[in-house]
Amino acid sequence: MALELETGLPSTRLLQSYMRDKKTVEVKLVTGDTVIGTLAWQDPQCICVDVEGEPTVIWRSALASMKGTSA
Amino acid sequence: MALELETGLPSTRLLQSYMRDKKTVEVKLVTGDTVIGTLAWQDPQCICVDVEGEPTVIWRSALASMKGTSA
Amino acid sequence: MALELETGLPSTRLLQSYMRDKKTVEVKLVTGDTVIGTLAWQDPQCICVDVEGEPTVIWRSALASMKGTSA
Amino acid sequence: MALELETGLPSTRLLQSYMRDKKTVEVKLVTGDTVIGTLAWQDPQCICVDVEGEPTVIWRSALASMKGTSA
Amino acid sequence: MALELETGLPSTRLLQSYMRDKKTVEVKLVTGDTVIGTLAWQDPQCICVDVEGEPTVIWRSALASMKGTSA
Amino acid sequence: MALELETGLPSTRLLQSYMRDKKTVEVKLVTGDTVIGTLAWQDPQCICVDVEGEPTVIWRSALASMKGTSA
Repeated sequence: MALELETGLPSTRLLQSYMRDKKTVEVKLVTGDTVIGTLAWQDPQCICVDVEGEPTVIWRSALASMKGTSA
Repeated sequence: MALELETGLPSTRLLQSYMRDKKTVEVKLVTGDTVIGTLAWQDPQCICVDVEGEPTVIWRSALASMKGTSA
Repeated sequence: MALELETGLPSTRLLQSYMRDKKTVEVKLVTGDTVIGTLAWQDPQCICVDVEGEPTVIWRSALASMKGTSA
Repeated sequence: MALELETGLPSTRLLQSYMRDKKTVEVKLVTGDTVIGTLAWQDPQCICVDVEGEPTVIWRSALASMKGTSA
Repeated sequence: MALELETGLPSTRLLQSYMRDKKTVEVKLVTGDTVIGTLAWQDPQCICVDVEGEPTVIWRSALASMKGTSA
Repeated sequence: MALELETGLPSTRLLQSYMRDKKTVEVKLVTGDTVIGTLAWQDPQCICVDVEGEPTVIWRSALASMKGTSA
Protein backbone atom coordinates (compact mmCIF):
# COMPACT_ATOMS: atom_id res chain seq x y z
CA MET A 1 0.00 0.00 0.00
CA ALA A 2 1.34 3.43 -0.99
CA LEU A 3 2.51 5.57 1.96
CA GLU A 4 1.50 8.83 0.23
CA LEU A 5 -1.96 9.99 -0.73
CA GLU A 6 -2.55 10.42 -4.45
CA THR A 7 -2.99 14.19 -4.13
CA GLY A 8 -3.41 14.47 -7.91
CA LEU A 9 -6.79 12.71 -7.79
CA PRO A 10 -10.03 14.75 -7.83
CA SER A 11 -11.39 12.52 -5.03
CA THR A 12 -8.39 13.24 -2.77
CA ARG A 13 -8.57 16.97 -3.51
CA LEU A 14 -12.34 17.08 -2.80
CA LEU A 15 -11.82 15.49 0.63
CA GLN A 16 -8.94 17.93 1.31
CA SER A 17 -11.29 20.86 0.47
CA TYR A 18 -13.94 19.45 2.86
CA MET A 19 -11.20 19.32 5.56
CA ARG A 20 -9.94 22.84 4.86
CA ASP A 21 -13.49 24.26 4.89
CA LYS A 22 -14.44 22.18 7.98
CA LYS A 23 -17.50 21.12 5.99
CA THR A 24 -19.88 18.71 7.70
CA VAL A 25 -20.02 15.53 5.66
CA GLU A 26 -22.32 12.51 5.63
CA VAL A 27 -20.33 9.32 5.08
CA LYS A 28 -22.14 6.10 4.11
CA LEU A 29 -20.40 2.82 4.92
CA VAL A 30 -20.85 -0.54 3.17
CA THR A 31 -22.57 -1.68 6.38
CA GLY A 32 -25.35 0.83 5.65
CA ASP A 33 -24.28 2.95 8.66
CA THR A 34 -23.97 6.70 8.25
CA VAL A 35 -21.32 8.79 10.05
CA ILE A 36 -21.82 12.57 10.16
CA GLY A 37 -19.06 14.98 11.18
CA THR A 38 -16.05 16.88 9.86
CA LEU A 39 -13.04 15.26 8.18
CA ALA A 40 -10.01 15.34 10.52
CA TRP A 41 -7.51 13.61 8.23
CA GLN A 42 -7.19 11.03 5.42
CA ASP A 43 -4.45 8.56 4.61
CA PRO A 44 -4.15 5.73 2.03
CA GLN A 45 -5.77 3.27 4.45
CA CYS A 46 -8.40 5.28 6.37
CA ILE A 47 -10.25 8.54 6.78
CA CYS A 48 -10.97 10.05 10.18
CA VAL A 49 -14.26 11.83 10.91
CA ASP A 50 -14.52 14.07 13.96
CA VAL A 51 -17.94 13.29 15.48
CA GLU A 52 -18.67 15.76 18.30
CA GLY A 53 -15.01 15.93 19.27
CA GLU A 54 -14.38 12.16 19.12
CA PRO A 55 -12.38 10.67 16.19
CA THR A 56 -14.07 7.84 14.24
CA VAL A 57 -11.62 6.00 11.99
CA ILE A 58 -13.19 4.50 8.84
CA TRP A 59 -11.34 2.00 6.62
CA ARG A 60 -11.39 3.07 2.94
CA SER A 61 -12.40 -0.48 1.96
CA ALA A 62 -15.63 0.08 3.95
CA LEU A 63 -16.45 3.46 2.38
CA ALA A 64 -19.50 3.55 0.10
CA SER A 65 -20.22 7.26 -0.47
CA MET A 66 -19.77 10.78 0.93
CA LYS A 67 -21.54 14.08 0.46
CA GLY A 68 -21.47 17.52 2.07
CA THR A 69 -24.43 18.52 4.21
CA SER A 70 -25.93 21.99 4.54
CA ALA A 71 -25.14 21.96 8.31
CA MET B 1 -3.18 2.59 -7.23
CA ALA B 2 -2.67 4.03 -10.73
CA LEU B 3 -2.91 7.84 -10.91
CA GLU B 4 -4.35 7.80 -14.43
CA LEU B 5 -7.66 6.37 -15.59
CA GLU B 6 -7.42 3.46 -18.01
CA THR B 7 -8.98 5.45 -20.86
CA GLY B 8 -8.53 2.48 -23.20
CA LEU B 9 -11.18 0.46 -21.35
CA PRO B 10 -14.74 0.29 -22.71
CA SER B 11 -16.06 0.87 -19.16
CA THR B 12 -14.04 4.09 -18.76
CA ARG B 13 -15.09 5.30 -22.21
CA LEU B 14 -18.79 4.56 -21.53
CA LEU B 15 -18.69 6.64 -18.32
CA GLN B 16 -16.90 9.44 -20.21
CA SER B 17 -19.70 9.42 -22.83
CA TYR B 18 -22.33 9.63 -20.06
CA MET B 19 -20.43 12.66 -18.68
CA ARG B 20 -20.10 14.33 -22.08
CA ASP B 21 -23.79 13.80 -22.87
CA LYS B 22 -24.83 14.82 -19.32
CA LYS B 23 -26.88 11.62 -19.27
CA THR B 24 -28.82 10.90 -16.10
CA VAL B 25 -27.53 7.64 -14.67
CA GLU B 26 -28.80 5.25 -11.99
CA VAL B 27 -25.92 3.94 -9.89
CA LYS B 28 -26.44 0.90 -7.64
CA LEU B 29 -24.08 0.51 -4.66
CA VAL B 30 -23.11 -2.72 -2.89
CA THR B 31 -25.16 -1.39 0.05
CA GLY B 32 -28.28 -1.70 -2.13
CA ASP B 33 -28.63 2.11 -2.26
CA THR B 34 -29.31 3.79 -5.58
CA VAL B 35 -27.90 7.21 -6.53
CA ILE B 36 -29.46 9.03 -9.49
CA GLY B 37 -27.83 12.04 -11.15
CA THR B 38 -25.26 13.04 -13.77
CA LEU B 39 -21.61 12.00 -13.71
CA ALA B 40 -19.40 14.97 -12.75
CA TRP B 41 -16.02 13.22 -12.89
CA GLN B 42 -14.31 9.83 -12.42
CA ASP B 43 -10.87 8.94 -11.14
CA PRO B 44 -9.14 5.61 -10.33
CA GLN B 45 -10.53 5.67 -6.78
CA CYS B 46 -14.01 7.23 -7.07
CA ILE B 47 -16.75 8.54 -9.31
CA CYS B 48 -18.68 11.71 -8.53
CA VAL B 49 -22.43 11.99 -9.23
CA ASP B 50 -24.06 15.40 -9.29
CA VAL B 51 -27.37 14.97 -7.44
CA GLU B 52 -29.46 18.16 -7.77
CA GLY B 53 -26.33 20.33 -7.72
CA GLU B 54 -24.62 18.53 -4.81
CA PRO B 55 -21.65 16.21 -5.46
CA THR B 56 -21.93 12.65 -4.11
CA VAL B 57 -18.59 10.84 -4.13
CA ILE B 58 -18.84 7.05 -4.54
CA TRP B 59 -15.87 4.71 -3.97
CA ARG B 60 -15.32 2.35 -6.91
CA SER B 61 -15.01 -0.56 -4.47
CA ALA B 62 -18.65 0.10 -3.48
CA LEU B 63 -20.00 0.28 -7.05
CA ALA B 64 -22.28 -2.57 -8.11
CA SER B 65 -23.87 -1.41 -11.40
CA MET B 66 -24.78 1.61 -13.51
CA LYS B 67 -27.26 2.26 -16.30
CA GLY B 68 -28.56 5.29 -18.18
CA THR B 69 -32.11 6.41 -17.48
CA SER B 70 -34.57 7.87 -19.96
CA ALA B 71 -34.76 11.11 -17.89
CA MET C 1 -5.10 -2.93 -13.12
CA ALA C 2 -4.18 -4.74 -16.38
CA LEU C 3 -5.43 -3.03 -19.56
CA GLU C 4 -5.89 -6.34 -21.38
CA LEU C 5 -8.27 -9.17 -20.56
CA GLU C 6 -6.62 -12.46 -19.59
CA THR C 7 -7.94 -14.26 -22.67
CA GLY C 8 -6.11 -17.42 -21.63
CA LEU C 9 -8.43 -17.93 -18.67
CA PRO C 10 -11.36 -20.39 -18.94
CA SER C 11 -13.61 -17.79 -17.26
CA THR C 12 -12.76 -15.12 -19.86
CA ARG C 13 -13.24 -17.60 -22.72
CA LEU C 14 -16.62 -18.78 -21.34
CA LEU C 15 -17.90 -15.17 -21.22
CA GLN C 16 -16.58 -14.59 -24.74
CA SER C 17 -18.52 -17.66 -25.95
CA TYR C 18 -21.70 -16.35 -24.27
CA MET C 19 -21.13 -13.06 -26.15
CA ARG C 20 -20.49 -14.75 -29.51
CA ASP C 21 -23.56 -16.98 -29.14
CA LYS C 22 -25.69 -14.06 -27.86
CA LYS C 23 -26.68 -16.37 -24.99
CA THR C 24 -29.05 -14.96 -22.40
CA VAL C 25 -27.27 -14.99 -19.05
CA GLU C 26 -28.42 -14.56 -15.46
CA VAL C 27 -25.89 -12.53 -13.50
CA LYS C 28 -26.06 -12.48 -9.67
CA LEU C 29 -24.48 -9.49 -7.89
CA VAL C 30 -23.10 -9.37 -4.34
CA THR C 31 -26.10 -7.16 -3.56
CA GLY C 32 -28.36 -10.15 -4.22
CA ASP C 33 -29.74 -8.46 -7.37
CA THR C 34 -30.05 -10.46 -10.56
CA VAL C 35 -29.48 -8.95 -14.02
CA ILE C 36 -30.73 -10.94 -17.04
CA GLY C 37 -29.68 -10.15 -20.61
CA THR C 38 -26.95 -10.75 -23.19
CA LEU C 39 -23.27 -9.90 -22.66
CA ALA C 40 -22.31 -6.86 -24.76
CA TRP C 41 -18.63 -6.61 -23.74
CA GLN C 42 -16.19 -7.33 -20.89
CA ASP C 43 -13.05 -5.54 -19.79
CA PRO C 44 -10.71 -5.97 -16.77
CA GLN C 45 -12.89 -3.66 -14.66
CA CYS C 46 -16.49 -4.34 -15.75
CA ILE C 47 -18.85 -6.44 -17.81
CA CYS C 48 -21.74 -4.93 -19.75
CA VAL C 49 -25.12 -6.69 -20.02
CA ASP C 50 -27.59 -5.61 -22.67
CA VAL C 51 -30.99 -5.58 -20.94
CA GLU C 52 -33.75 -4.99 -23.52
CA GLY C 53 -31.49 -2.73 -25.57
CA GLU C 54 -30.10 -0.72 -22.62
CA PRO C 55 -26.51 -1.34 -21.39
CA THR C 56 -26.09 -2.16 -17.69
CA VAL C 57 -22.47 -1.88 -16.56
CA ILE C 58 -21.53 -4.21 -13.67
CA TRP C 59 -18.24 -3.86 -11.74
CA ARG C 60 -16.34 -7.15 -11.55
CA SER C 61 -15.82 -6.60 -7.81
CA ALA C 62 -19.63 -6.80 -7.43
CA LEU C 63 -20.05 -9.99 -9.48
CA ALA C 64 -21.10 -13.10 -7.53
CA SER C 65 -22.10 -15.67 -10.19
CA MET C 66 -23.29 -16.14 -13.77
CA LYS C 67 -25.11 -18.90 -15.64
CA GLY C 68 -26.70 -19.32 -19.03
CA THR C 69 -30.49 -19.50 -19.22
CA SER C 70 -32.58 -21.59 -21.56
CA ALA C 71 -34.19 -18.39 -23.00
CA MET D 1 -3.83 -10.98 -11.83
CA ALA D 2 -1.68 -14.10 -12.29
CA LEU D 3 -2.56 -16.18 -15.37
CA GLU D 4 -1.58 -19.45 -13.66
CA LEU D 5 -3.19 -21.10 -10.64
CA GLU D 6 -0.96 -21.41 -7.57
CA THR D 7 -0.92 -25.20 -7.74
CA GLY D 8 1.45 -25.30 -4.75
CA LEU D 9 -1.29 -24.09 -2.40
CA PRO D 10 -3.24 -26.61 -0.25
CA SER D 11 -6.48 -24.79 -1.19
CA THR D 12 -5.82 -25.18 -4.94
CA ARG D 13 -4.87 -28.85 -4.50
CA LEU D 14 -8.00 -29.58 -2.42
CA LEU D 15 -10.25 -28.13 -5.15
CA GLN D 16 -8.31 -30.13 -7.77
CA SER D 17 -8.94 -33.33 -5.76
CA TYR D 18 -12.68 -32.51 -5.56
CA MET D 19 -12.63 -32.10 -9.37
CA ARG D 20 -10.73 -35.36 -9.96
CA ASP D 21 -13.02 -37.31 -7.62
CA LYS D 22 -16.16 -35.60 -9.07
CA LYS D 23 -17.11 -34.88 -5.44
CA THR D 24 -20.34 -32.99 -4.89
CA VAL D 25 -19.51 -29.73 -3.12
CA GLU D 26 -21.57 -27.12 -1.32
CA VAL D 27 -20.28 -23.62 -2.10
CA LYS D 28 -21.38 -20.67 0.04
CA LEU D 29 -21.22 -17.20 -1.53
CA VAL D 30 -20.85 -13.86 0.24
CA THR D 31 -24.46 -13.21 -0.82
CA GLY D 32 -25.52 -16.06 1.47
CA ASP D 33 -26.52 -18.17 -1.55
CA THR D 34 -25.46 -21.80 -1.71
CA VAL D 35 -24.50 -23.56 -4.96
CA ILE D 36 -24.35 -27.37 -4.94
CA GLY D 37 -22.74 -29.39 -7.72
CA THR D 38 -19.40 -30.73 -8.98
CA LEU D 39 -16.36 -28.55 -9.74
CA ALA D 40 -15.82 -28.32 -13.50
CA TRP D 41 -12.73 -26.07 -13.48
CA GLN D 42 -10.96 -23.32 -11.53
CA ASP D 43 -8.84 -20.41 -12.69
CA PRO D 44 -7.29 -17.41 -10.86
CA GLN D 45 -10.48 -15.38 -11.33
CA CYS D 46 -13.36 -17.87 -11.02
CA ILE D 47 -14.45 -21.41 -10.25
CA CYS D 48 -17.08 -23.22 -12.29
CA VAL D 49 -19.64 -25.54 -10.66
CA ASP D 50 -21.59 -27.97 -12.81
CA VAL D 51 -25.18 -27.82 -11.51
CA GLU D 52 -27.27 -30.54 -13.18
CA GLY D 53 -25.32 -30.20 -16.43
CA GLU D 54 -25.33 -26.37 -16.51
CA PRO D 55 -22.13 -24.42 -15.69
CA THR D 56 -22.42 -21.79 -12.94
CA VAL D 57 -19.42 -19.45 -12.89
CA ILE D 58 -18.58 -18.01 -9.45
CA TRP D 59 -16.11 -15.13 -8.96
CA ARG D 60 -13.45 -15.94 -6.35
CA SER D 61 -14.04 -12.54 -4.72
CA ALA D 62 -17.60 -13.72 -3.96
CA LEU D 63 -16.58 -17.09 -2.47
CA ALA D 64 -17.14 -17.51 1.27
CA SER D 65 -16.68 -21.25 1.95
CA MET D 66 -16.79 -24.72 0.41
CA LYS D 67 -17.21 -28.23 1.77
CA GLY D 68 -17.74 -31.69 0.35
CA THR D 69 -21.16 -33.29 0.77
CA SER D 70 -21.94 -36.94 1.36
CA ALA D 71 -23.99 -37.02 -1.91
CA MET E 1 -0.70 -13.59 -4.63
CA ALA E 2 2.31 -14.72 -2.56
CA LEU E 3 2.84 -18.50 -2.55
CA GLU E 4 4.27 -18.43 1.01
CA LEU E 5 2.51 -17.50 4.22
CA GLU E 6 3.91 -14.43 5.99
CA THR E 7 5.09 -16.45 8.99
CA GLY E 8 6.56 -13.32 10.54
CA LEU E 9 3.10 -11.85 11.17
CA PRO E 10 1.49 -12.15 14.63
CA SER E 11 -1.80 -13.14 12.96
CA THR E 12 -0.17 -16.02 11.06
CA ARG E 13 1.66 -17.17 14.21
CA LEU E 14 -1.55 -17.05 16.31
CA LEU E 15 -3.37 -19.27 13.81
CA GLN E 16 -0.36 -21.64 13.74
CA SER E 17 -0.53 -21.90 17.56
CA TYR E 18 -4.27 -22.68 17.37
CA MET E 19 -3.42 -25.46 14.87
CA ARG E 20 -0.58 -26.85 17.00
CA ASP E 21 -2.72 -26.85 20.15
CA LYS E 22 -5.75 -28.25 18.25
CA LYS E 23 -7.73 -25.38 19.82
CA THR E 24 -11.40 -25.17 18.92
CA VAL E 25 -11.98 -21.84 17.19
CA GLU E 26 -15.09 -19.87 16.30
CA VAL E 27 -14.70 -18.24 12.87
CA LYS E 28 -17.10 -15.48 11.80
CA LEU E 29 -17.54 -14.90 8.05
CA VAL E 30 -18.57 -11.70 6.30
CA THR E 31 -21.86 -13.49 5.54
CA GLY E 32 -22.59 -13.54 9.28
CA ASP E 33 -22.16 -17.34 9.36
CA THR E 34 -20.10 -18.89 12.13
CA VAL E 35 -17.93 -21.99 11.61
CA ILE E 36 -16.71 -23.84 14.73
CA GLY E 37 -13.95 -26.45 14.61
CA THR E 38 -10.18 -26.89 14.66
CA LEU E 39 -7.80 -25.32 12.16
CA ALA E 40 -6.44 -27.95 9.75
CA TRP E 41 -4.22 -25.68 7.62
CA GLN E 42 -3.85 -22.12 6.31
CA ASP E 43 -2.42 -20.78 3.06
CA PRO E 44 -2.28 -17.28 1.52
CA GLN E 45 -5.72 -17.78 -0.10
CA CYS E 46 -7.75 -19.85 2.41
CA ILE E 47 -7.94 -21.41 5.83
CA CYS E 48 -9.36 -24.88 6.41
CA VAL E 49 -11.47 -25.69 9.49
CA ASP E 50 -12.05 -29.31 10.45
CA VAL E 51 -15.74 -29.51 11.43
CA GLU E 52 -16.49 -32.95 12.91
CA GLY E 53 -13.99 -34.63 10.58
CA GLU E 54 -15.07 -32.77 7.41
CA PRO E 55 -12.87 -29.97 5.97
CA THR E 56 -14.57 -26.61 5.41
CA VAL E 57 -12.46 -24.30 3.23
CA ILE E 58 -12.94 -20.56 3.93
CA TRP E 59 -11.60 -17.86 1.63
CA ARG E 60 -9.52 -15.24 3.50
CA SER E 61 -11.44 -12.47 1.71
CA ALA E 62 -14.59 -13.75 3.47
CA LEU E 63 -13.05 -13.91 6.97
CA ALA E 64 -14.36 -11.38 9.49
CA SER E 65 -13.04 -12.56 12.88
CA MET E 66 -11.76 -15.57 14.85
CA LYS E 67 -11.49 -16.42 18.54
CA GLY E 68 -10.64 -19.47 20.58
CA THR E 69 -13.46 -21.17 22.48
CA SER E 70 -13.28 -22.82 25.88
CA ALA E 71 -14.36 -26.16 24.26
CA MET F 1 1.21 -8.07 1.28
CA ALA F 2 3.81 -5.94 3.09
CA LEU F 3 5.39 -7.64 6.13
CA GLU F 4 5.83 -4.30 7.96
CA LEU F 5 3.13 -1.95 9.20
CA GLU F 6 3.12 1.47 7.56
CA THR F 7 4.05 3.24 10.80
CA GLY F 8 4.13 6.57 8.96
CA LEU F 9 0.35 6.55 8.49
CA PRO F 10 -1.89 8.53 10.87
CA SER F 11 -4.26 5.52 11.04
CA THR F 12 -1.44 3.19 12.16
CA ARG F 13 -0.20 5.72 14.70
CA LEU F 14 -3.72 6.28 16.12
CA LEU F 15 -4.15 2.52 16.69
CA GLN F 16 -0.68 2.37 18.29
CA SER F 17 -1.71 5.18 20.69
CA TYR F 18 -4.90 3.29 21.59
CA MET F 19 -2.70 0.24 22.34
CA ARG F 20 -0.19 2.23 24.42
CA ASP F 21 -2.96 3.94 26.42
CA LYS F 22 -4.90 0.65 26.79
CA LYS F 23 -7.92 2.61 25.55
CA THR F 24 -11.19 0.68 25.22
CA VAL F 25 -12.24 0.79 21.58
CA GLU F 26 -15.46 -0.04 19.77
CA VAL F 27 -14.72 -1.79 16.46
CA LYS F 28 -17.47 -2.09 13.83
CA LEU F 29 -17.13 -4.91 11.28
CA VAL F 30 -18.58 -5.04 7.75
CA THR F 31 -20.93 -7.74 9.11
CA GLY F 32 -22.50 -5.10 11.36
CA ASP F 33 -21.04 -6.78 14.47
CA THR F 34 -19.37 -4.64 17.10
CA VAL F 35 -16.34 -5.82 19.12
CA ILE F 36 -15.45 -3.87 22.27
CA GLY F 37 -12.11 -4.27 24.07
CA THR F 38 -8.51 -3.09 24.07
CA LEU F 39 -6.14 -3.41 21.12
CA ALA F 40 -3.54 -6.13 21.77
CA TRP F 41 -1.62 -5.84 18.48
CA GLN F 42 -1.95 -4.95 14.80
CA ASP F 43 -0.23 -6.30 11.72
CA PRO F 44 -0.71 -5.70 7.97
CA GLN F 45 -3.36 -8.47 7.79
CA CYS F 46 -5.26 -8.27 11.11
CA ILE F 47 -5.83 -6.44 14.35
CA CYS F 48 -6.31 -8.25 17.64
CA VAL F 49 -8.78 -7.01 20.28
CA ASP F 50 -8.53 -8.29 23.83
CA VAL F 51 -12.12 -8.96 24.93
CA GLU F 52 -12.20 -9.79 28.67
CA GLY F 53 -8.84 -11.55 28.45
CA GLU F 54 -9.61 -13.50 25.23
CA PRO F 55 -8.00 -12.43 21.92
CA THR F 56 -10.39 -11.79 19.00
CA VAL F 57 -8.56 -11.58 15.67
CA ILE F 58 -10.24 -9.31 13.09
CA TRP F 59 -9.20 -9.27 9.43
CA ARG F 60 -8.49 -5.73 8.16
CA SER F 61 -10.62 -6.44 5.05
CA ALA F 62 -13.61 -6.85 7.42
CA LEU F 63 -12.98 -3.64 9.38
CA ALA F 64 -15.54 -0.86 8.89
CA SER F 65 -14.81 1.69 11.66
CA MET F 66 -13.25 2.18 15.12
CA LYS F 67 -13.66 4.73 17.87
CA GLY F 68 -12.50 5.12 21.45
CA THR F 69 -15.10 4.74 24.20
CA SER F 70 -15.26 6.64 27.46
CA ALA F 71 -14.93 3.31 29.39
